Amino acid sequence: MTSSDSVPFDDRGLAYGDGVFETVLLRDGAPGLWPYHRARLMRGCRTLGIEPPDEAALAATWQAPASGLEVLKIILTRGSGGRGYALPGTAEPRLISRRTPFAPATLRWRGVDVCLCALRLARQPALAGIKHLNRLENVLARREWQRKDIAEGLLADSDGNLVEATAMNVFWRAGGAFWTPPLDACGVAGTLRAALLARGVVAEAPLSLAELRSSESIEQLFVGNSVQGVWPVNTLTAPDGELLRRFLSASASPLQAAAHRLLGYSPVAGALLSGEKR
Amino acid sequence: MTSSDSVPFDDRGLAYGDGVFETVLLRDGAPGLWPYHRARLMRGCRTLGIEPPDEAALAATWQAPASGLEVLKIILTRGSGGRGYALPGTAEPRLISRRTPFAPATLRWRGVDVCLCALRLARQPALAGIKHLNRLENVLARREWQRKDIAEGLLADSDGNLVEATAMNVFWRAGGAFWTPPLDACGVAGTLRAALLARGVVAEAPLSLAELRSSESIEQLFVGNSVQGVWPVNTLTAPDGELLRRFLSASASPLQAAAHRLLGYSPVAGALLSGEKR
Repeated sequence: MTSSDSVPFDDRGLAYGDGVFETVLLRDGAPGLWPYHRARLMRGCRTLGIEPPDEAALAATWQAPASGLEVLKIILTRGSGGRGYALPGTAEPRLISRRTPFAPATLRWRGVDVCLCALRLARQPALAGIKHLNRLENVLARREWQRKDIAEGLLADSDGNLVEATAMNVFWRAGGAFWTPPLDACGVAGTLRAALLARGVVAEAPLSLAELRSSESIEQLFVGNSVQGVWPVNTLTAPDGELLRRFLSASASPLQAAAHRLLGYSPVAGALLSGEKR
Repeated sequence: MTSSDSVPFDDRGLAYGDGVFETVLLRDGAPGLWPYHRARLMRGCRTLGIEPPDEAALAATWQAPASGLEVLKIILTRGSGGRGYALPGTAEPRLISRRTPFAPATLRWRGVDVCLCALRLARQPALAGIKHLNRLENVLARREWQRKDIAEGLLADSDGNLVEATAMNVFWRAGGAFWTPPLDACGVAGTLRAALLARGVVAEAPLSLAELRSSESIEQLFVGNSVQGVWPVNTLTAPDGELLRRFLSASASPLQAAAHRLLGYSPVAGALLSGEKR
Protein backbone atom coordinates (compact mmCIF):
# COMPACT_ATOMS: atom_id res chain seq x y z
CA MET A 1 0.00 0.00 0.00
CA THR A 2 1.61 3.23 -1.13
CA SER A 3 0.52 6.80 -0.65
CA SER A 4 1.38 9.82 -2.71
CA ASP A 5 -0.25 12.74 -4.44
CA SER A 6 -0.07 11.41 -8.00
CA VAL A 7 -0.22 8.09 -9.84
CA PRO A 8 2.20 6.77 -12.49
CA PHE A 9 1.33 6.09 -16.12
CA ASP A 10 0.76 2.38 -15.51
CA ASP A 11 -1.61 2.78 -12.57
CA ARG A 12 -4.71 0.72 -13.29
CA GLY A 13 -6.98 3.32 -11.72
CA LEU A 14 -5.94 5.67 -14.49
CA ALA A 15 -5.76 3.03 -17.23
CA TYR A 16 -9.09 1.29 -16.58
CA GLY A 17 -10.82 3.03 -13.68
CA ASP A 18 -9.74 -0.09 -11.76
CA GLY A 19 -10.42 1.07 -8.23
CA VAL A 20 -12.85 2.74 -5.83
CA PHE A 21 -13.18 6.05 -4.04
CA GLU A 22 -14.88 7.68 -1.08
CA THR A 23 -15.83 11.30 -0.37
CA VAL A 24 -16.07 11.85 3.38
CA LEU A 25 -17.25 14.82 5.44
CA LEU A 26 -14.72 15.67 8.16
CA ARG A 27 -15.84 17.75 11.12
CA ASP A 28 -12.95 18.98 13.24
CA GLY A 29 -10.95 16.09 11.81
CA ALA A 30 -13.54 13.39 12.59
CA PRO A 31 -15.07 11.52 9.62
CA GLY A 32 -18.87 11.47 9.41
CA LEU A 33 -20.60 8.14 8.78
CA TRP A 34 -17.17 6.50 8.77
CA PRO A 35 -18.43 2.93 9.36
CA TYR A 36 -20.54 3.29 6.21
CA HIS A 37 -17.73 4.73 4.11
CA ARG A 38 -15.36 2.03 5.33
CA ALA A 39 -17.93 -0.71 4.65
CA ARG A 40 -18.60 0.51 1.10
CA LEU A 41 -14.89 0.75 0.35
CA MET A 42 -14.42 -2.82 1.57
CA ARG A 43 -17.42 -4.01 -0.44
CA GLY A 44 -15.90 -2.38 -3.52
CA CYS A 45 -12.63 -4.20 -2.86
CA ARG A 46 -14.46 -7.51 -2.59
CA THR A 47 -16.45 -6.87 -5.76
CA LEU A 48 -13.36 -5.97 -7.78
CA GLY A 49 -11.00 -8.43 -6.09
CA ILE A 50 -8.70 -5.72 -4.77
CA GLU A 51 -6.84 -6.41 -1.53
CA PRO A 52 -8.42 -4.05 1.02
CA PRO A 53 -6.21 -1.47 2.73
CA ASP A 54 -5.26 -2.14 6.33
CA GLU A 55 -7.11 -0.16 8.97
CA ALA A 56 -4.11 1.94 9.94
CA ALA A 57 -3.47 3.11 6.37
CA LEU A 58 -7.14 3.93 5.91
CA ALA A 59 -7.41 5.80 9.20
CA ALA A 60 -4.22 7.72 8.41
CA THR A 61 -6.12 9.48 5.62
CA TRP A 62 -8.13 11.44 8.20
CA GLN A 63 -6.12 11.20 11.43
CA ALA A 64 -4.58 14.64 11.46
CA PRO A 65 -5.77 17.48 13.67
CA ALA A 66 -8.02 20.01 11.99
CA SER A 67 -10.89 22.31 12.80
CA GLY A 68 -14.06 23.07 10.89
CA LEU A 69 -15.48 21.22 7.92
CA GLU A 70 -13.41 19.48 5.25
CA VAL A 71 -14.07 16.95 2.53
CA LEU A 72 -11.70 13.99 2.47
CA LYS A 73 -11.39 12.20 -0.87
CA ILE A 74 -9.84 8.74 -0.79
CA ILE A 75 -8.88 6.91 -3.99
CA LEU A 76 -7.86 3.26 -3.86
CA THR A 77 -6.60 1.74 -7.12
CA ARG A 78 -5.49 -1.81 -7.83
CA GLY A 79 -1.99 -0.38 -8.31
CA SER A 80 0.38 -0.75 -11.22
CA GLY A 81 1.03 -3.50 -13.67
CA GLY A 82 -0.57 -6.54 -15.17
CA ARG A 83 -0.61 -7.48 -18.82
CA GLY A 84 -3.46 -5.55 -20.36
CA TYR A 85 -6.65 -6.29 -18.46
CA ALA A 86 -5.09 -9.34 -16.76
CA LEU A 87 -4.30 -8.67 -13.13
CA PRO A 88 -0.70 -8.30 -12.00
CA GLY A 89 0.60 -11.34 -10.14
CA THR A 90 1.52 -9.27 -7.12
CA ALA A 91 -0.76 -6.27 -7.13
CA GLU A 92 0.10 -3.60 -4.63
CA PRO A 93 -2.97 -1.36 -4.29
CA ARG A 94 -2.37 2.36 -4.24
CA LEU A 95 -4.11 4.51 -1.62
CA ILE A 96 -4.07 8.28 -2.09
CA SER A 97 -6.14 10.97 -0.43
CA ARG A 98 -6.70 14.68 -0.22
CA ARG A 99 -8.45 16.98 2.26
CA THR A 100 -10.13 20.21 1.18
CA PRO A 101 -11.92 22.85 3.29
CA PHE A 102 -15.67 22.66 2.74
CA ALA A 103 -18.91 24.53 3.32
CA PRO A 104 -22.25 22.94 2.44
CA ALA A 105 -24.64 24.84 0.16
CA THR A 106 -27.01 25.60 3.03
CA LEU A 107 -29.41 27.67 0.95
CA ARG A 108 -30.20 24.50 -0.97
CA TRP A 109 -31.46 22.88 2.23
CA ARG A 110 -34.61 25.02 1.67
CA GLY A 111 -35.32 23.64 -1.78
CA VAL A 112 -33.80 23.25 -5.23
CA ASP A 113 -34.76 22.78 -8.85
CA VAL A 114 -33.53 19.62 -10.56
CA CYS A 115 -33.66 18.34 -14.12
CA LEU A 116 -34.30 14.89 -15.56
CA CYS A 117 -31.25 13.80 -17.55
CA ALA A 118 -31.74 12.28 -20.99
CA LEU A 119 -28.91 9.77 -20.46
CA ARG A 120 -30.08 6.40 -19.20
CA LEU A 121 -27.84 4.41 -16.86
CA ALA A 122 -26.80 1.03 -18.22
CA ARG A 123 -27.81 -1.92 -16.06
CA GLN A 124 -24.72 -3.76 -14.81
CA PRO A 125 -25.44 -5.80 -11.66
CA ALA A 126 -21.75 -6.81 -11.38
CA LEU A 127 -20.81 -3.22 -10.52
CA ALA A 128 -24.02 -1.84 -8.98
CA GLY A 129 -23.88 0.01 -5.68
CA ILE A 130 -20.11 0.34 -5.25
CA LYS A 131 -18.34 3.67 -5.73
CA HIS A 132 -15.92 2.57 -8.45
CA LEU A 133 -13.83 4.82 -10.67
CA ASN A 134 -15.85 4.21 -13.88
CA ARG A 135 -18.00 7.30 -13.71
CA LEU A 136 -18.34 8.45 -17.32
CA GLU A 137 -22.11 8.12 -17.17
CA ASN A 138 -22.18 10.61 -14.32
CA VAL A 139 -19.85 12.96 -16.22
CA LEU A 140 -21.99 12.78 -19.37
CA ALA A 141 -25.18 13.32 -17.36
CA ARG A 142 -23.69 16.34 -15.58
CA ARG A 143 -22.86 17.83 -19.00
CA GLU A 144 -26.54 17.93 -19.91
CA TRP A 145 -27.26 21.19 -18.11
CA GLN A 146 -25.32 24.39 -17.56
CA ARG A 147 -28.01 26.53 -15.92
CA LYS A 148 -26.86 27.57 -12.47
CA ASP A 149 -30.40 27.36 -11.07
CA ILE A 150 -30.46 23.60 -11.70
CA ALA A 151 -28.91 21.97 -8.63
CA GLU A 152 -28.88 18.32 -9.70
CA GLY A 153 -29.90 15.93 -12.48
CA LEU A 154 -31.99 12.82 -11.93
CA LEU A 155 -30.99 9.59 -13.64
CA ALA A 156 -33.11 6.64 -14.69
CA ASP A 157 -31.86 3.30 -15.97
CA SER A 158 -32.45 1.88 -19.43
CA ASP A 159 -35.70 0.29 -18.18
CA GLY A 160 -37.07 3.69 -17.16
CA ASN A 161 -36.68 3.26 -13.40
CA LEU A 162 -35.50 6.19 -11.29
CA VAL A 163 -32.05 5.37 -9.85
CA GLU A 164 -30.20 8.36 -8.40
CA ALA A 165 -28.98 11.89 -9.13
CA THR A 166 -25.56 12.52 -10.69
CA ALA A 167 -23.80 12.87 -7.31
CA MET A 168 -26.60 12.17 -4.85
CA ASN A 169 -29.18 9.58 -3.97
CA VAL A 170 -32.86 10.30 -4.40
CA PHE A 171 -35.72 9.95 -1.92
CA TRP A 172 -39.43 10.63 -2.02
CA ARG A 173 -42.35 10.75 0.34
CA ALA A 174 -45.38 8.63 -0.48
CA GLY A 175 -48.17 7.50 1.85
CA GLY A 176 -46.50 9.40 4.68
CA ALA A 177 -43.27 7.34 4.46
CA PHE A 178 -39.90 7.93 2.77
CA TRP A 179 -38.55 5.78 -0.06
CA THR A 180 -35.43 5.36 -2.20
CA PRO A 181 -34.85 3.15 -5.26
CA PRO A 182 -33.14 -0.24 -4.95
CA LEU A 183 -29.65 -0.14 -6.50
CA ASP A 184 -29.12 -3.72 -7.61
CA ALA A 185 -28.64 -2.93 -11.32
CA CYS A 186 -26.84 0.44 -11.28
CA GLY A 187 -26.18 3.52 -9.19
CA VAL A 188 -23.99 4.32 -6.21
CA ALA A 189 -25.29 3.27 -2.80
CA GLY A 190 -24.58 6.44 -0.82
CA THR A 191 -23.53 6.32 2.81
CA LEU A 192 -26.21 8.77 3.93
CA ARG A 193 -28.78 6.57 2.16
CA ALA A 194 -27.31 3.48 3.88
CA ALA A 195 -27.50 5.13 7.30
CA LEU A 196 -31.09 6.25 6.72
CA LEU A 197 -32.03 2.73 5.58
CA ALA A 198 -30.31 1.19 8.61
CA ARG A 199 -32.31 3.45 10.94
CA GLY A 200 -35.60 2.72 9.20
CA VAL A 201 -36.05 6.35 8.15
CA VAL A 202 -36.36 5.27 4.52
CA ALA A 203 -37.10 1.97 2.75
CA GLU A 204 -36.43 0.73 -0.77
CA ALA A 205 -39.08 0.83 -3.48
CA PRO A 206 -38.93 1.02 -7.27
CA LEU A 207 -40.26 4.13 -9.00
CA SER A 208 -40.76 4.49 -12.73
CA LEU A 209 -40.25 7.78 -14.51
CA ALA A 210 -43.91 7.72 -15.45
CA GLU A 211 -44.87 7.57 -11.78
CA LEU A 212 -42.31 10.22 -10.86
CA ARG A 213 -43.76 12.59 -13.40
CA SER A 214 -47.43 12.07 -12.76
CA SER A 215 -48.31 9.92 -9.76
CA GLU A 216 -50.23 11.88 -7.16
CA SER A 217 -48.97 9.53 -4.47
CA ILE A 218 -45.47 11.05 -4.81
CA GLU A 219 -45.87 13.84 -2.25
CA GLN A 220 -42.34 15.17 -2.02
CA LEU A 221 -38.96 14.58 -3.64
CA PHE A 222 -35.44 14.92 -2.21
CA VAL A 223 -31.82 14.48 -3.25
CA GLY A 224 -29.00 14.08 -0.77
CA ASN A 225 -25.57 12.82 0.09
CA SER A 226 -23.22 12.53 3.06
CA VAL A 227 -21.44 15.80 2.31
CA GLN A 228 -24.17 18.25 1.31
CA GLY A 229 -27.04 16.87 3.36
CA VAL A 230 -30.60 16.73 1.96
CA TRP A 231 -32.08 19.12 -0.62
CA PRO A 232 -35.88 19.13 -1.02
CA VAL A 233 -36.88 19.36 -4.67
CA ASN A 234 -39.24 22.15 -5.70
CA THR A 235 -39.40 21.54 -9.44
CA LEU A 236 -38.38 18.89 -11.95
CA THR A 237 -37.55 20.15 -15.44
CA ALA A 238 -36.20 18.80 -18.69
CA PRO A 239 -32.59 19.82 -19.40
CA ASP A 240 -33.93 22.52 -21.74
CA GLY A 241 -35.92 24.08 -18.90
CA GLU A 242 -39.40 22.73 -19.67
CA LEU A 243 -41.26 22.25 -16.39
CA LEU A 244 -42.18 18.59 -15.88
CA ARG A 245 -43.53 18.72 -12.36
CA ARG A 246 -43.73 20.86 -9.24
CA PHE A 247 -43.44 19.23 -5.80
CA LEU A 248 -44.73 20.30 -2.41
CA SER A 249 -42.24 22.36 -0.47
CA ALA A 250 -40.46 20.00 1.91
CA SER A 251 -37.98 22.04 3.90
CA ALA A 252 -37.80 21.08 7.58
CA SER A 253 -38.98 17.57 6.64
CA PRO A 254 -38.42 14.67 9.07
CA LEU A 255 -36.19 13.07 6.40
CA GLN A 256 -33.97 16.11 6.23
CA ALA A 257 -33.93 16.46 10.02
CA ALA A 258 -32.84 12.83 10.45
CA ALA A 259 -30.19 13.16 7.75
CA HIS A 260 -28.80 16.38 9.15
CA ARG A 261 -28.62 14.94 12.65
CA LEU A 262 -26.49 12.12 11.20
CA LEU A 263 -24.19 14.65 9.52
CA GLY A 264 -24.02 17.13 12.41
CA TYR A 265 -25.79 19.83 10.43
CA SER A 266 -28.28 22.10 12.15
CA PRO A 267 -31.95 21.46 11.48
CA VAL A 268 -33.51 23.77 8.94
CA ALA A 269 -36.02 26.21 10.40
CA GLY A 270 -38.64 28.18 8.54
CA ALA A 271 -36.60 31.33 8.10
CA LEU A 272 -33.30 31.82 6.31
CA LEU A 273 -30.25 31.27 8.47
CA SER A 274 -27.63 33.96 8.47
CA GLY A 275 -24.58 33.29 6.34
CA GLU A 276 -26.32 30.71 4.19
CA LYS A 277 -24.50 29.73 1.07
CA ARG A 278 -25.91 28.61 -2.23
CA MET B 1 -2.21 20.06 -23.52
CA THR B 2 0.45 18.77 -21.14
CA SER B 3 2.62 15.70 -21.31
CA SER B 4 4.29 13.82 -18.49
CA ASP B 5 4.67 10.32 -17.13
CA SER B 6 2.19 10.61 -14.27
CA VAL B 7 -1.08 12.34 -13.47
CA PRO B 8 -1.95 14.36 -10.35
CA PHE B 9 -4.57 13.44 -7.76
CA ASP B 10 -7.21 15.66 -9.33
CA ASP B 11 -6.85 14.34 -12.90
CA ARG B 12 -10.30 13.39 -14.14
CA GLY B 13 -8.95 10.37 -15.98
CA LEU B 14 -8.01 8.93 -12.62
CA ALA B 15 -11.05 10.24 -10.74
CA TYR B 16 -13.77 9.20 -13.19
CA GLY B 17 -12.11 7.43 -16.13
CA ASP B 18 -12.86 10.69 -17.95
CA GLY B 19 -10.76 10.18 -21.06
CA VAL B 20 -9.79 7.85 -23.88
CA PHE B 21 -6.78 5.77 -24.87
CA GLU B 22 -5.17 4.10 -27.86
CA THR B 23 -2.78 1.15 -28.13
CA VAL B 24 -0.79 1.40 -31.36
CA LEU B 25 1.63 -1.01 -33.04
CA LEU B 26 4.85 0.79 -34.03
CA ARG B 27 7.08 -0.78 -36.65
CA ASP B 28 10.48 0.89 -36.88
CA GLY B 29 8.84 3.94 -35.35
CA ALA B 30 5.92 4.09 -37.78
CA PRO B 31 2.39 3.65 -36.35
CA GLY B 32 0.23 0.94 -37.92
CA LEU B 33 -3.35 1.83 -38.88
CA TRP B 34 -2.68 5.37 -37.64
CA PRO B 35 -5.62 7.00 -39.49
CA TYR B 36 -7.94 4.58 -37.67
CA HIS B 37 -6.37 5.18 -34.27
CA ARG B 38 -6.47 8.91 -34.80
CA ALA B 39 -10.09 8.80 -35.97
CA ARG B 40 -11.22 6.75 -32.99
CA LEU B 41 -9.43 9.06 -30.56
CA MET B 42 -11.13 12.07 -32.17
CA ARG B 43 -14.50 10.31 -32.08
CA GLY B 44 -13.96 9.62 -28.37
CA CYS B 45 -13.20 13.31 -27.81
CA ARG B 46 -16.39 14.31 -29.60
CA THR B 47 -18.47 11.78 -27.66
CA LEU B 48 -17.12 12.95 -24.30
CA GLY B 49 -16.82 16.62 -25.19
CA ILE B 50 -13.05 16.73 -24.68
CA GLU B 51 -11.05 19.19 -26.75
CA PRO B 52 -9.04 17.03 -29.18
CA PRO B 53 -5.25 17.22 -29.07
CA ASP B 54 -3.54 19.10 -31.87
CA GLU B 55 -1.94 17.02 -34.58
CA ALA B 56 1.60 17.92 -33.59
CA ALA B 57 1.13 16.85 -29.97
CA LEU B 58 -0.46 13.59 -31.08
CA ALA B 59 2.24 12.84 -33.65
CA ALA B 60 4.93 13.63 -31.09
CA THR B 61 3.89 10.50 -29.18
CA TRP B 62 5.38 8.31 -31.92
CA GLN B 63 7.78 10.58 -33.83
CA ALA B 64 11.08 9.37 -32.41
CA PRO B 65 13.46 7.07 -34.26
CA ALA B 66 13.27 3.40 -33.31
CA SER B 67 13.74 -0.01 -34.86
CA GLY B 68 11.67 -3.15 -34.50
CA LEU B 69 8.23 -3.54 -32.99
CA GLU B 70 6.89 -1.48 -30.13
CA VAL B 71 3.49 -0.81 -28.60
CA LEU B 72 2.63 2.85 -28.08
CA LYS B 73 0.00 3.57 -25.47
CA ILE B 74 -1.59 7.02 -25.55
CA ILE B 75 -3.85 8.25 -22.75
CA LEU B 76 -5.83 11.47 -23.17
CA THR B 77 -7.74 12.68 -20.11
CA ARG B 78 -9.98 15.71 -19.74
CA GLY B 79 -7.34 17.10 -17.39
CA SER B 80 -7.67 18.41 -13.87
CA GLY B 81 -10.40 20.20 -12.05
CA GLY B 82 -14.08 20.80 -12.16
CA ARG B 83 -16.45 20.62 -9.23
CA GLY B 84 -17.33 16.98 -8.79
CA TYR B 85 -18.68 15.62 -12.06
CA ALA B 86 -19.21 19.14 -13.46
CA LEU B 87 -16.63 20.04 -16.08
CA PRO B 88 -13.95 22.58 -15.29
CA GLY B 89 -14.55 25.94 -16.94
CA THR B 90 -11.20 25.85 -18.68
CA ALA B 91 -10.30 22.20 -19.09
CA GLU B 92 -6.78 21.54 -20.29
CA PRO B 93 -6.69 17.94 -21.54
CA ARG B 94 -3.70 15.87 -20.48
CA LEU B 95 -1.91 13.74 -23.09
CA ILE B 96 0.56 11.14 -21.87
CA SER B 97 2.11 8.22 -23.69
CA ARG B 98 4.55 5.36 -23.33
CA ARG B 99 6.40 3.09 -25.79
CA THR B 100 7.27 -0.51 -24.93
CA PRO B 101 9.17 -3.11 -27.01
CA PHE B 102 6.77 -5.74 -28.30
CA ALA B 103 6.63 -9.17 -29.91
CA PRO B 104 3.31 -10.67 -31.04
CA ALA B 105 2.32 -14.12 -29.76
CA THR B 106 2.92 -15.69 -33.17
CA LEU B 107 2.13 -19.23 -32.05
CA ARG B 108 -1.42 -18.06 -31.44
CA TRP B 109 -1.76 -17.19 -35.12
CA ARG B 110 -2.19 -20.98 -35.62
CA GLY B 111 -5.14 -21.26 -33.30
CA VAL B 112 -6.20 -20.65 -29.71
CA ASP B 113 -8.72 -21.79 -27.15
CA VAL B 114 -11.08 -19.16 -25.76
CA CYS B 115 -13.70 -19.13 -23.03
CA LEU B 116 -17.15 -17.59 -22.83
CA CYS B 117 -17.21 -15.11 -19.95
CA ALA B 118 -20.13 -15.16 -17.53
CA LEU B 119 -20.15 -11.36 -17.22
CA ARG B 120 -22.57 -9.64 -19.57
CA LEU B 121 -21.69 -6.22 -20.96
CA ALA B 122 -24.15 -3.49 -20.03
CA ARG B 123 -25.78 -1.76 -22.99
CA GLN B 124 -24.86 1.94 -23.02
CA PRO B 125 -25.23 3.45 -26.50
CA ALA B 126 -23.86 6.81 -25.26
CA LEU B 127 -20.40 5.23 -24.80
CA ALA B 128 -20.45 2.36 -27.31
CA GLY B 129 -17.53 1.93 -29.69
CA ILE B 130 -15.09 4.46 -28.25
CA LYS B 131 -12.01 3.36 -26.31
CA HIS B 132 -12.75 5.24 -23.09
CA LEU B 133 -11.07 4.74 -19.74
CA ASN B 134 -14.06 3.04 -18.04
CA ARG B 135 -12.94 -0.55 -18.51
CA LEU B 136 -13.98 -2.31 -15.31
CA GLU B 137 -16.17 -4.74 -17.26
CA ASN B 138 -13.12 -5.86 -19.22
CA VAL B 139 -11.09 -6.21 -16.01
CA LEU B 140 -13.81 -8.26 -14.32
CA ALA B 141 -14.21 -10.45 -17.40
CA ARG B 142 -10.45 -11.06 -17.61
CA ARG B 143 -10.55 -12.19 -13.96
CA GLU B 144 -12.87 -15.06 -14.85
CA TRP B 145 -10.11 -17.39 -16.03
CA GLN B 146 -6.54 -18.06 -14.92
CA ARG B 147 -5.71 -21.06 -17.12
CA LYS B 148 -2.76 -20.21 -19.34
CA ASP B 149 -4.16 -22.25 -22.23
CA ILE B 150 -7.16 -19.91 -22.52
CA ALA B 151 -6.07 -17.06 -24.80
CA GLU B 152 -9.11 -14.82 -24.65
CA GLY B 153 -12.62 -14.51 -23.23
CA LEU B 154 -15.70 -13.77 -25.33
CA LEU B 155 -18.24 -11.25 -24.09
CA ALA B 156 -21.94 -11.00 -24.80
CA ASP B 157 -24.23 -8.14 -23.81
CA SER B 158 -27.15 -8.32 -21.41
CA ASP B 159 -29.43 -9.28 -24.32
CA GLY B 160 -27.27 -12.34 -25.11
CA ASN B 161 -25.65 -10.97 -28.27
CA LEU B 162 -21.98 -11.66 -28.91
CA VAL B 163 -20.03 -8.35 -28.73
CA GLU B 164 -16.25 -8.76 -28.49
CA ALA B 165 -13.45 -10.42 -26.54
CA THR B 166 -11.90 -8.76 -23.48
CA ALA B 167 -9.13 -7.04 -25.51
CA MET B 168 -9.98 -8.03 -29.08
CA ASN B 169 -12.80 -7.92 -31.57
CA VAL B 170 -14.47 -11.09 -32.74
CA PHE B 171 -15.09 -12.36 -36.27
CA TRP B 172 -16.66 -15.46 -37.75
CA ARG B 173 -17.03 -17.11 -41.12
CA ALA B 174 -20.54 -18.01 -42.27
CA GLY B 175 -21.73 -18.72 -45.79
CA GLY B 176 -18.21 -18.23 -47.05
CA ALA B 177 -18.04 -14.60 -45.81
CA PHE B 178 -16.59 -12.97 -42.67
CA TRP B 179 -18.69 -11.16 -40.08
CA THR B 180 -18.31 -9.12 -36.90
CA PRO B 181 -20.98 -7.88 -34.46
CA PRO B 182 -22.31 -4.31 -34.65
CA LEU B 183 -21.09 -2.25 -31.69
CA ASP B 184 -23.86 0.29 -31.24
CA ALA B 185 -24.76 -0.67 -27.67
CA CYS B 186 -21.41 -1.64 -26.15
CA GLY B 187 -17.90 -2.83 -26.97
CA VAL B 188 -14.79 -1.17 -28.36
CA ALA B 189 -14.63 -0.67 -32.13
CA GLY B 190 -11.11 -1.87 -32.81
CA THR B 191 -8.95 -0.28 -35.48
CA LEU B 192 -8.14 -3.59 -37.18
CA ARG B 193 -11.89 -4.29 -37.30
CA ALA B 194 -12.47 -0.81 -38.77
CA ALA B 195 -9.82 -1.34 -41.45
CA LEU B 196 -11.24 -4.75 -42.37
CA LEU B 197 -14.76 -3.29 -42.57
CA ALA B 198 -13.53 -0.39 -44.72
CA ARG B 199 -11.93 -2.85 -47.16
CA GLY B 200 -15.01 -5.03 -47.33
CA VAL B 201 -13.17 -8.02 -45.87
CA VAL B 202 -15.77 -8.29 -43.11
CA ALA B 203 -19.31 -6.98 -42.65
CA GLU B 204 -21.46 -6.40 -39.58
CA ALA B 205 -24.05 -8.92 -38.45
CA PRO B 206 -25.59 -9.75 -35.08
CA LEU B 207 -24.92 -13.15 -33.53
CA SER B 208 -26.66 -14.54 -30.46
CA LEU B 209 -24.87 -16.78 -27.99
CA ALA B 210 -27.31 -19.54 -28.88
CA GLU B 211 -26.23 -19.32 -32.53
CA LEU B 212 -22.56 -19.11 -31.57
CA ARG B 213 -22.83 -22.28 -29.53
CA SER B 214 -24.85 -24.39 -31.90
CA SER B 215 -25.47 -22.91 -35.35
CA GLU B 216 -23.91 -25.05 -38.06
CA SER B 217 -23.65 -22.00 -40.30
CA ILE B 218 -20.86 -20.62 -38.07
CA GLU B 219 -17.92 -22.24 -39.84
CA GLN B 220 -14.97 -20.60 -38.13
CA LEU B 221 -14.35 -18.13 -35.31
CA PHE B 222 -11.55 -15.57 -34.84
CA VAL B 223 -10.42 -12.95 -32.37
CA GLY B 224 -8.03 -10.15 -33.28
CA ASN B 225 -6.72 -6.68 -32.70
CA SER B 226 -4.28 -4.21 -34.25
CA VAL B 227 -1.36 -5.30 -32.08
CA GLN B 228 -1.56 -9.10 -31.96
CA GLY B 229 -3.13 -9.78 -35.34
CA VAL B 230 -5.77 -12.48 -35.80
CA TRP B 231 -6.07 -15.67 -33.78
CA PRO B 232 -8.28 -18.46 -35.18
CA VAL B 233 -10.35 -20.10 -32.44
CA ASN B 234 -10.11 -23.88 -32.03
CA THR B 235 -12.36 -24.37 -29.03
CA LEU B 236 -14.84 -22.40 -26.97
CA THR B 237 -15.10 -23.40 -23.32
CA ALA B 238 -16.84 -22.23 -20.19
CA PRO B 239 -14.51 -20.50 -17.68
CA ASP B 240 -14.40 -23.76 -15.70
CA GLY B 241 -13.05 -25.63 -18.72
CA GLU B 242 -16.21 -27.33 -19.96
CA LEU B 243 -16.03 -27.64 -23.75
CA LEU B 244 -18.88 -25.71 -25.38
CA ARG B 245 -17.89 -26.01 -29.03
CA ARG B 246 -15.06 -26.94 -31.34
CA PHE B 247 -14.45 -24.91 -34.52
CA LEU B 248 -12.82 -25.82 -37.82
CA SER B 249 -9.13 -25.04 -37.88
CA ALA B 250 -8.75 -21.68 -39.63
CA SER B 251 -5.05 -20.87 -39.74
CA ALA B 252 -3.95 -19.30 -43.04
CA SER B 253 -7.49 -17.97 -43.52
CA PRO B 254 -8.12 -15.10 -45.97
CA LEU B 255 -9.30 -13.02 -42.99
CA GLN B 256 -6.04 -13.54 -41.18
CA ALA B 257 -4.03 -12.93 -44.35
CA ALA B 258 -5.81 -9.63 -44.98
CA ALA B 259 -5.39 -8.55 -41.36
CA HIS B 260 -1.71 -9.45 -41.23
CA ARG B 261 -1.06 -7.60 -44.47
CA LEU B 262 -2.57 -4.50 -42.84
CA LEU B 263 -0.32 -4.94 -39.80
CA GLY B 264 2.85 -5.87 -41.69
CA TYR B 265 2.91 -9.37 -40.21
CA SER B 266 4.00 -12.29 -42.35
CA PRO B 267 1.29 -14.62 -43.61
CA VAL B 268 0.92 -17.82 -41.66
CA ALA B 269 1.95 -20.94 -43.58
CA GLY B 270 1.10 -24.51 -42.76
CA ALA B 271 4.22 -25.32 -40.75
CA LEU B 272 5.50 -23.70 -37.56
CA LEU B 273 7.75 -20.71 -38.11
CA SER B 274 11.06 -20.69 -36.30
CA GLY B 275 11.22 -18.52 -33.22
CA GLU B 276 7.48 -18.42 -32.76
CA LYS B 277 6.28 -17.09 -29.46
CA ARG B 278 3.20 -18.05 -27.57
